Amino acid sequence: MKNFTALSDVTNIDELVQEALKLKANPLSFPSLGEGKTIGLVFLNPSLRTRMSTQKAAMNLGLNVMVLNVNQESWAWEFEDGAIMNGTKVEHVKDATAVLSQYCDIVGIRCFSSLENREEDESEFVLNQFMKYCTVPVVSLESATRHPLQSLADLMTLTEAWNQPHKPKVVLTWAPHVKPLPQAVANSFSEWMCKAQVDFVITHPEGYELQSSFSQGAIIEYNQQKALQDADFVYVKNWSSYHDYGKILSGNHDHWLLNETKMKVTQNAKIMHCLPVRRNVELSDALLDGKNSLIQQQAGNRLFAAQIVLKSILEGLNQ
Amino acid sequence: MKNFTALSDVTNIDELVQEALKLKANPLSFPSLGEGKTIGLVFLNPSLRTRMSTQKAAMNLGLNVMVLNVNQESWAWEFEDGAIMNGTKVEHVKDATAVLSQYCDIVGIRCFSSLENREEDESEFVLNQFMKYCTVPVVSLESATRHPLQSLADLMTLTEAWNQPHKPKVVLTWAPHVKPLPQAVANSFSEWMCKAQVDFVITHPEGYELQSSFSQGAIIEYNQQKALQDADFVYVKNWSSYHDYGKILSGNHDHWLLNETKMKVTQNAKIMHCLPVRRNVELSDALLDGKNSLIQQQAGNRLFAAQIVLKSILEGLNQ
Amino acid sequence: MKNFTALSDVTNIDELVQEALKLKANPLSFPSLGEGKTIGLVFLNPSLRTRMSTQKAAMNLGLNVMVLNVNQESWAWEFEDGAIMNGTKVEHVKDATAVLSQYCDIVGIRCFSSLENREEDESEFVLNQFMKYCTVPVVSLESATRHPLQSLADLMTLTEAWNQPHKPKVVLTWAPHVKPLPQAVANSFSEWMCKAQVDFVITHPEGYELQSSFSQGAIIEYNQQKALQDADFVYVKNWSSYHDYGKILSGNHDHWLLNETKMKVTQNAKIMHCLPVRRNVELSDALLDGKNSLIQQQAGNRLFAAQIVLKSILEGLNQ
Repeated sequence: MKNFTALSDVTNIDELVQEALKLKANPLSFPSLGEGKTIGLVFLNPSLRTRMSTQKAAMNLGLNVMVLNVNQESWAWEFEDGAIMNGTKVEHVKDATAVLSQYCDIVGIRCFSSLENREEDESEFVLNQFMKYCTVPVVSLESATRHPLQSLADLMTLTEAWNQPHKPKVVLTWAPHVKPLPQAVANSFSEWMCKAQVDFVITHPEGYELQSSFSQGAIIEYNQQKALQDADFVYVKNWSSYHDYGKILSGNHDHWLLNETKMKVTQNAKIMHCLPVRRNVELSDALLDGKNSLIQQQAGNRLFAAQIVLKSILEGLNQ
Repeated sequence: MKNFTALSDVTNIDELVQEALKLKANPLSFPSLGEGKTIGLVFLNPSLRTRMSTQKAAMNLGLNVMVLNVNQESWAWEFEDGAIMNGTKVEHVKDATAVLSQYCDIVGIRCFSSLENREEDESEFVLNQFMKYCTVPVVSLESATRHPLQSLADLMTLTEAWNQPHKPKVVLTWAPHVKPLPQAVANSFSEWMCKAQVDFVITHPEGYELQSSFSQGAIIEYNQQKALQDADFVYVKNWSSYHDYGKILSGNHDHWLLNETKMKVTQNAKIMHCLPVRRNVELSDALLDGKNSLIQQQAGNRLFAAQIVLKSILEGLNQ
Repeated sequence: MKNFTALSDVTNIDELVQEALKLKANPLSFPSLGEGKTIGLVFLNPSLRTRMSTQKAAMNLGLNVMVLNVNQESWAWEFEDGAIMNGTKVEHVKDATAVLSQYCDIVGIRCFSSLENREEDESEFVLNQFMKYCTVPVVSLESATRHPLQSLADLMTLTEAWNQPHKPKVVLTWAPHVKPLPQAVANSFSEWMCKAQVDFVITHPEGYELQSSFSQGAIIEYNQQKALQDADFVYVKNWSSYHDYGKILSGNHDHWLLNETKMKVTQNAKIMHCLPVRRNVELSDALLDGKNSLIQQQAGNRLFAAQIVLKSILEGLNQ
């Protein structure tokens, strides 16, 4: 593997999941694969799970880790090529990235969408500017439109939890929230589910359609209750509107809150969420903490998702 | 040792001090006890000594270290169970802690008192919510009412500095300050001294009484000069009022500033302070920098206090 | 080597450069020189290159690394001796530094000039207060008047790029900027060039003269075009006025922006800059990204400059 920023970087999705699960069974089986090598983790946005799981994954492989919180510890970056830098941005991503490439063997970067400029976010402007100037492998720690480490962990979790011969029905359901959130997790989950051995349905209020390239192959169902019918897994997530970009649409959507009554039409479905979750806004405590909740298993799998990706990249470097 | 958040976690206080002093003589004698294991250090408040000494202690034992500055690097946490999270708190401690428990083998947490809600602080609400959801051993890096790593280092320092057959007289004296401080260090020092082989006196202006459970067994003496009579050790520390919770009481207490004249009635007493110290407000430069000052020895012992605690917890894990 | 804060700490400048280049050829040749030892990196100001290159250099030598972002992660420091600390500064550098000396075997510190109090900056007040109380070797990660790790990397870069028998002509040219910058990089570069085997010219608008002790031995030429004549290396850098301390002088100095036309009178000179650079304000994209640009080579050499310095200090410690 050269980079890991989207599903398209994965040659064989099933194989990757199986290898990740193998690592989970024996996390310290490659303690010196990364010996003498360094990963730099660059955060333009806050992070808990991604920050900690990637650090831990790197250490499990013997990699040295350097963390850079841009804006707090370093200088604000300019991303526009050709910019006349007479404002508040102190360093161009071109220079910063070329420097990081000299000190690090792999670089991870987290760069959320602005939710203001759709075209820019959609083009993955920040991530792509970073990658354009980075000469070492890049791992996305979530970008404007995708969060592939989350999706890999999600697919691992589904795989662990499903032992029936037939395909499970997986439903991604929109949830209410108090502020506009990026579409990245939903996009990415959809992208991965459309390629996985599952029947995949997305349900959300009208106006919250994801960019079609991410939901290609999914069934879109505006009636939540209908969507939930016979579901084996229900992935709950809020996202802001893609069409009215970055907005919370007017109208009361509180009834989209998932509850135990709604879950009755499912096949005793498992509940998933990527965290952080606004408890009792997106999802009730009862469901989050109930026996069908997979949320902590998902978070735990983030470690092995990161570790299998770093392992694959290191093997590429060592060839 | 399972957790370390209060004196009650210690089976044998003298033994722990002796083992810590043994480690001090040979800090690198257990370089691989923590191999393949990880400690996560969670800071909800600033830290220098605790941050650095705990990191160093962990590295001396071969532990990997991950630091998380919540609020700066991650998401603001909600602590209230059942909260409807429609405000500014992005993640519930329940979720964050369960995640950390999956990535770390031990977790340290620093969580100061609010000095606003006495009942909440007194119940160690934040620490206890954290521990309730943490499935791995927890080390307090200072909490609302206690700072046990400091107290252990203080007791080590007293032990090193005292070689007489009789018990030393130890005086904890309140000092002026410019802003309201938590009672944690004073509480904890008092709690430990009441169990140690010392005669222990606390002196402070009326109204600054510590919560009685921490000072059970101590002599309270409102006359500072009388308290200092024949003292062998004088521990200087400010704290805000517990009874008028978190307040600096009215009235001029500047004369509580310790000086060389006042020290004349002592047995050439050693001076102690946990740092950081407001020089020439809490205590004069002359005393802080004089030959009787133990402040740097205390700070140095923080490393070995942390190391013996981590060693004990690791031995528990490895059993 | 005991400390590294100025050229005067270097016994033999040529030897140091040669040894640094040898390390560059084989960065992992001393993987356990720092075993069981710890470097503390203290940042009072932001940093990317220095932060990352010093961390990496330390890890290449087997040193443990602890980073402290003062003000963000710890307490604001007081530097004035004898201060009555009744303001916002929570800890005296005297105490903080003595503590760090107990936890670390080497300490690096970054402390920019204030650009407000010339006398204080000129005396290296902050760095010197730190060093006064530090009992272990100190490495400057840039101080009020100097940035020696940058200058060492710059000299390495010059040495690599020059293979003629005669001395190269090196020109340091002032560049426009949007805000007042310290003189540290210019001072330090000048100090090192005046001792190196080069012909050294400084050019800047009148009023931007560096403090004379740093430019002793350099030719000062106010006519930029004349200065550039036959240059082999052109080092571009902005700095604020030393005489009208910390100010951007009135008058339009935009024409000091270096461009390809001006470069025509040089000997096809190489371009240098320490980064971060305000692109198209200090220097055009065309020059920064052109084939004569050495800026990334300089940044890459920062790693080996730090590593040779840490190696020399460690060898001193191990004796």
